[in-house]
Amino acid sequence: MTAPRIDALQYANWSEKIFRQMREGGVDAVHATITYHENFRETVLNIEAWNRRFERHPDLIFQGFSAADITLAQDTGRTAIFFGSQNPSCIEDDIGLVEVLHRLGLRFMQLSYNNQSLLATGCYEAEDTGLTRMGREVVTEMNRVGLVVDMSHSGERSTLEAIDHSTRPIAITHANPASWHAARRNKSDRVLDALSESGGMLGFSLYPHHLRGGSDCTLTDFCEMVARTADRIGPDRVGIGTDLCQDQPDSVVDWMRAGRWTKRMDYGEGSAAAPGFPPMPGWFRDNRDFGQIEAGLRGTGLSDTDVAGIMGTNWRAFFDRSFGPVS
Amino acid sequence: MTAPRIDALQYANWSEKIFRQMREGGVDAVHATITYHENFRETVLNIEAWNRRFERHPDLIFQGFSAADITLAQDTGRTAIFFGSQNPSCIEDDIGLVEVLHRLGLRFMQLSYNNQSLLATGCYEAEDTGLTRMGREVVTEMNRVGLVVDMSHSGERSTLEAIDHSTRPIAITHANPASWHAARRNKSDRVLDALSESGGMLGFSLYPHHLRGGSDCTLTDFCEMVARTADRIGPDRVGIGTDLCQDQPDSVVDWMRAGRWTKRMDYGEGSAAAPGFPPMPGWFRDNRDFGQIEAGLRGTGLSDTDVAGIMGTNWRAFFDRSFGPVS
Repeated sequence: MTAPRIDALQYANWSEKIFRQMREGGVDAVHATITYHENFRETVLNIEAWNRRFERHPDLIFQGFSAADITLAQDTGRTAIFFGSQNPSCIEDDIGLVEVLHRLGLRFMQLSYNNQSLLATGCYEAEDTGLTRMGREVVTEMNRVGLVVDMSHSGERSTLEAIDHSTRPIAITHANPASWHAARRNKSDRVLDALSESGGMLGFSLYPHHLRGGSDCTLTDFCEMVARTADRIGPDRVGIGTDLCQDQPDSVVDWMRAGRWTKRMDYGEGSAAAPGFPPMPGWFRDNRDFGQIEAGLRGTGLSDTDVAGIMGTNWRAFFDRSFGPVS
Repeated sequence: MTAPRIDALQYANWSEKIFRQMREGGVDAVHATITYHENFRETVLNIEAWNRRFERHPDLIFQGFSAADITLAQDTGRTAIFFGSQNPSCIEDDIGLVEVLHRLGLRFMQLSYNNQSLLATGCYEAEDTGLTRMGREVVTEMNRVGLVVDMSHSGERSTLEAIDHSTRPIAITHANPASWHAARRNKSDRVLDALSESGGMLGFSLYPHHLRGGSDCTLTDFCEMVARTADRIGPDRVGIGTDLCQDQPDSVVDWMRAGRWTKRMDYGEGSAAAPGFPPMPGWFRDNRDFGQIEAGLRGTGLSDTDVAGIMGTNWRAFFDRSFGPVS
């Protein structure tokens, strides 16, 4: 099998242009965020919009349900799009919606997004009590059907408890080590070690707020951080999760941060002085630049196997063991 | 003004029989729970059902919006029904629904019901981090429009923070002092003192799980507890909130406890051996027996003014200062 290129997180303003860039960058599979604060019905509307994209661009994209779809993507020169949610709003207060959304193709769900949810605490709350009563029930149900727990935007204790309570490996699809850049969204060594020991996966983010130096972060600095993290937690426990929010207007980041929970402005990782999406680093404009990352990783002295693992085979293996019932 | 009789919490299987019993018991106003786990649309369906009851029984009941409606009820020999919610599910994740539901007549909303909500922690979670980021925003909005914060089913710290953060007095519509009966739903002296100091109100519950001795609790024991609590936190800070769940099948208490958050049985205040609604004490079968409570309170030596306050004038004063914008 040829090594695939997989991006474990994008939330773009989807268009034919972007799907063509995925092909240009050789991206075989993308975990696409389809919902943040949307409730179940609104999430289904977003799925309907994806169905129209799949119908309109069958030569470029199709919906991915299992790891075998990555091979299908490679064989047919297309990109498999896997659905994910960055907040559990899509299941509302209803554990029964876990199985329903899995059937519709949802493959990742964050237990919280910055704030407290019904399931877990987000990384912007002052304190974190870990998984709630409902959170424990829902993780068990996600384990049963094969919906991956993603803790990218959750608090430290909630993340550790999710790793502990989940009977299957979890993911942090888009974040970096806090030891490299101390952003609230980046993860402590304690979390990364526990994630790795349980068989989970970390996707390295290219969102400037998660990068040392922000938009000015160099490719070398980024790739050396990747290599060091692979050394620490294992070269098969890491992949890419760019958090690419291509072509989104700043009104979208306002929505991502404030949802419907406040009538005021919430700047999240931004600030009053810089409230919008930050510019991406020059060496990673969009999907066309995955080759730059791969070349950068080779430059660090990582083995070909490890580079292939980080660029896609690690995520493929994780998808393979995660997206269905335990066999 | 004649002293009214007000019950600050009922959740009955509503019927003409019950409305007639309200009249027989001289009950001028009832805070009726219209929703627990229902989302906004489902809550509106429940309001539609109430609208049909108001249309069908205009000689017995009407919807109450302000304290003046208590006087209207007394003048016309009917019972004013005030709407409340025992969980914030009705506002979903949307702060904008606070004003919408207030316009529809919602006058009380609990910030949580046993479990963690988006706003606050419930009394059955292992730990309590107090108000969430969204919780603080929503309390401010409830204060603005005149929707009363009710913390009957919330955890200790969340309750103390709600009292502290709210710029207007809050309510605990149905609970008793834990010093009298150490149930998880009953409230510590610390909470009761803070509630009282901030101008809030406690409604004494007659739900057997909140009573010392359960269904066998005597009228005398109950009334002496009321008198002692009035002594401690002030005779104008207390009223009645029976938590009467008349004619409900046990399937309803299963729903109240488990909602949609678990696929398993949750016994809440009950147990596997006694999962259903407990029988009410013999001296308070239903709305017809408010006279028994009043007589019992007189027997404790409380003054006529204090008894009238507890039976209704305290809640009337609270309704009067709570149900609209700050004047």
